[in-house]
Amino acid sequence: MVKDSGASTALLTDQYELTMLAAALADGSAQRRCTFEVFARRLPDGRRFGVVAGTARLLDALARFRFGEPELAVVGRFLDDRTLDWLRNYRFSGDIRGYREGELYFPNSPVLTVQGTFAECVLLETIALSIFNHDCAIASAAARMVSAADGRTIIEMGSRRTHEAAAPASSRAAYLAGFSATSNLEAVREYGIPGTGTSAHAFVLLHGGQDGPNEAAAFRSQIDLLGVGTTLLVDTFDITEGVRTAIEVAGTELGGVRIDSGDLGVLARQVRKQLDELGATRTKIVFSGDLDEYAIAALRGEPVDAYGVGTSLVTGSGAPTAGMVYKLVEVDGLPVAKRSTHKESRGGTKRAIRLLRSSGTVVEEVIYRDGRQRPDTGEYDVRELQIPLVNEGEVLPDLPSLTDSRELVRQGLVSLPWEGLKLSRGDAAIPTTFVD
Amino acid sequence: MVKDSGASTALLTDQYELTMLAAALADGSAQRRCTFEVFARRLPDGRRFGVVAGTARLLDALARFRFGEPELAVVGRFLDDRTLDWLRNYRFSGDIRGYREGELYFPNSPVLTVQGTFAECVLLETIALSIFNHDCAIASAAARMVSAADGRTIIEMGSRRTHEAAAPASSRAAYLAGFSATSNLEAVREYGIPGTGTSAHAFVLLHGGQDGPNEAAAFRSQIDLLGVGTTLLVDTFDITEGVRTAIEVAGTELGGVRIDSGDLGVLARQVRKQLDELGATRTKIVFSGDLDEYAIAALRGEPVDAYGVGTSLVTGSGAPTAGMVYKLVEVDGLPVAKRSTHKESRGGTKRAIRLLRSSGTVVEEVIYRDGRQRPDTGEYDVRELQIPLVNEGEVLPDLPSLTDSRELVRQGLVSLPWEGLKLSRGDAAIPTTFVD
Repeated sequence: MVKDSGASTALLTDQYELTMLAAALADGSAQRRCTFEVFARRLPDGRRFGVVAGTARLLDALARFRFGEPELAVVGRFLDDRTLDWLRNYRFSGDIRGYREGELYFPNSPVLTVQGTFAECVLLETIALSIFNHDCAIASAAARMVSAADGRTIIEMGSRRTHEAAAPASSRAAYLAGFSATSNLEAVREYGIPGTGTSAHAFVLLHGGQDGPNEAAAFRSQIDLLGVGTTLLVDTFDITEGVRTAIEVAGTELGGVRIDSGDLGVLARQVRKQLDELGATRTKIVFSGDLDEYAIAALRGEPVDAYGVGTSLVTGSGAPTAGMVYKLVEVDGLPVAKRSTHKESRGGTKRAIRLLRSSGTVVEEVIYRDGRQRPDTGEYDVRELQIPLVNEGEVLPDLPSLTDSRELVRQGLVSLPWEGLKLSRGDAAIPTTFVD
Repeated sequence: MVKDSGASTALLTDQYELTMLAAALADGSAQRRCTFEVFARRLPDGRRFGVVAGTARLLDALARFRFGEPELAVVGRFLDDRTLDWLRNYRFSGDIRGYREGELYFPNSPVLTVQGTFAECVLLETIALSIFNHDCAIASAAARMVSAADGRTIIEMGSRRTHEAAAPASSRAAYLAGFSATSNLEAVREYGIPGTGTSAHAFVLLHGGQDGPNEAAAFRSQIDLLGVGTTLLVDTFDITEGVRTAIEVAGTELGGVRIDSGDLGVLARQVRKQLDELGATRTKIVFSGDLDEYAIAALRGEPVDAYGVGTSLVTGSGAPTAGMVYKLVEVDGLPVAKRSTHKESRGGTKRAIRLLRSSGTVVEEVIYRDGRQRPDTGEYDVRELQIPLVNEGEVLPDLPSLTDSRELVRQGLVSLPWEGLKLSRGDAAIPTTFVD
């Protein structure tokens, strides 16, 4: 659906946030000053870094986190009047800071810090996590694919493999991480991402009749509409035949041929050779169809010019959710933390810096308690990781644009020690140190 | 966001659907009568069945698939005036039939059949697949969890682990497959699913001070609000201590205790013993925290009364997308199919029936060509799998309700041969036969 910019986001939450609010209002604890932090205890299975994404979408959702009468009617089924009155006037009036969108993150990086009363902060848990867990998962997978593509064009075309409203958010996260374009029109509209798309197998199959298929007619029709700079899909029947027909119809100035299936490495060489022999030396080869970062990396030595990525991108390439949590870490100035098995947290509001060699390579992330002196960083340069995002309920101006975030991802990937870009399973690219 | 029932869904699509439309309008093929079918070539890795979900959501999206001026402004950047005029008047006027929501499906089951002109059908590819790939993935995973839970209460609480707008759709798919309730308030509002939720660790941590945590105060506050029938979260610090405090505060009529972490099998027995010794013999034990169908099955012999499932549900428990495709299978009465490697399709509009023994156990799915005589089914009973959904653009009345679909899933699971319910990897529970 096209997003109504005025639509409330207040029900995109879990019921227990509201029962906790009601109980806290009743027992007087609702006004305690709290810090909640968003972080991932670990990276998905063997990943070496994550990419922060979702911040701007959260700030947008925050502005629409309002309880009007339709929302109050739903929560009124289980809430008392005092709570309903409080919700009717709800505006977040606290402070939020966090990592820039596009910043790399590692285990325990405090990517978002929300401060205010318990009441106003607890309500934001579900929406904050939904957005960060989705967008970080996609951006993190996308950055690995971008790195594997090694400068070649890489296009997001996964809309059909994810929830219809998650699709434009996936496009955004992929673009943020360095993808070139998207197939998704809502992402074009909402985020200004370059759109792309030409045709599918159905279009080739449509152009036939009693005498069988007519690939040439489909190609001719597409070229009539989009010009010879377009990309023709050549693998509906036989690829060698399809390439020959494509150049016959389009001439040697054809923009590209797309191949959506098959043994890609061998095919790429065959098709390049065929195109060159036909004189179409500048016609590009676009590969799509079940590509992930590993398949892309395996094609690094092959004559492929562009990749289209769908399923693996929108499903986070094996890690469809980023494992972020939203934890209460401080109440009225005192650190708090649960102690139960396996999920221990560190109490206290935190600050985070990243240490770099003079070459620009990062060596360590250091997390320390807010209000304490910044730890001695020796010979290293220091990058402050948190920036203010919301001040007393007001979203700050001049937050990073999508373009800024793309550049930040690019720089972030370059800043990693070389093992950090390996696609194989391993440890986080740099260690995180807590200084208490 | 709360869904605006009037919001257009037309941009939740891929750009190439529109360039194909434009080319087909220009070359005269747009009016050819076509059949597109939605099916999965295979089930996710070792799954034995899938559950159809998303049909009602698609029909809702179809009614809002309209190009108003905001949508035309976006597609007008790459489309000609003829196409824009055509889109301005777009209303799907064809026919759709498909499997009932809640029906089981197997590889190649034609779960949705869309018939009309190429132009009106091709536009629906992306939205149809987004909805079916998401909802079927969640419902299919959910049904395995419901089966593993073996009649015990199972609650969906995964909103924070998926895109904020995918969350209510996940709740719906889980409920359709037999879950009891959801934490998601938008799902309560939009689909009338029972909502549930009490409190989180943050609420316990909030109730402390200089002297340390005060679990009793948090429990007392929750009980004051929700009564002793509520479920208290007892694992913030020490579980044995937490259970003792819970019964001290609530008395032996406490509704339940929730445990969100730890070694669940051992814990369940310990906590049950402790509750019984304290006289709280009717207090239920609710488990949550990284449960999936395997963990649930492993607890079958333990004294657990209810499960809360989050991450594994909303990510499809390893299969976050159902692998459905939308394929052109017939043009002007002639079957069409691509022939490229690995992704061969079967041309021709299809019908599907399922054969059952008199005991009600299913034995085979039979797919045959529409218009041909139904194959001889011998001694078996026959279940027609496709029902009409849309007739000349009009959605038919009396389609299955969510309640109907829940019953259908329940019956479907019972109808499987016993190997069909095994959680281990294997073949589809029944074979699919094509009769040409």
